[in-house]
Amino acid sequence: MKAKVFVTLKPSVFDPQGHTIADALHSMGYTGVGDVRQGKYFELELNSLSADQARALALEVADKVLANPVIESYRIEVD
Amino acid sequence: MKAKVFVTLKPSVFDPQGHTIADALHSMGYTGVGDVRQGKYFELELNSLSADQARALALEVADKVLANPVIESYRIEVD
Repeated sequence: MKAKVFVTLKPSVFDPQGHTIADALHSMGYTGVGDVRQGKYFELELNSLSADQARALALEVADKVLANPVIESYRIEVD
Repeated sequence: MKAKVFVTLKPSVFDPQGHTIADALHSMGYTGVGDVRQGKYFELELNSLSADQARALALEVADKVLANPVIESYRIEVD
């Protein structure tokens, strides 16, 4: 199974990296782009697990290692 | 409209960051996790554009700014 984990800063947390990208895009003439948020993306290979086990493992790894739940939120897709 | 851009290193490119995460997970006892790849994730707010225009803009921005097509591949979702 493969799990995809998407980690983003919570909406209430300022994202200077995303802000800088948005500024850069505007200065390049991409005025159609408004707010930009940058996050992290992980692809995990999960060996010989059922879908439920894979989801539980991905959730635990995301919560304990990949994301900081104090300031970040995460989303998981398993397939 | 909102565009999500997922950028990952191409499969043929070595990903030391993902490798380090995998090693850390193994040392923490998460032996069910095999290979890990880390990438970047962007959320772009696209102002007053049709779905087709938004997709075209997101593609251009991803190709020219957010990803390095020499070593990275990207995927876009617009909704």
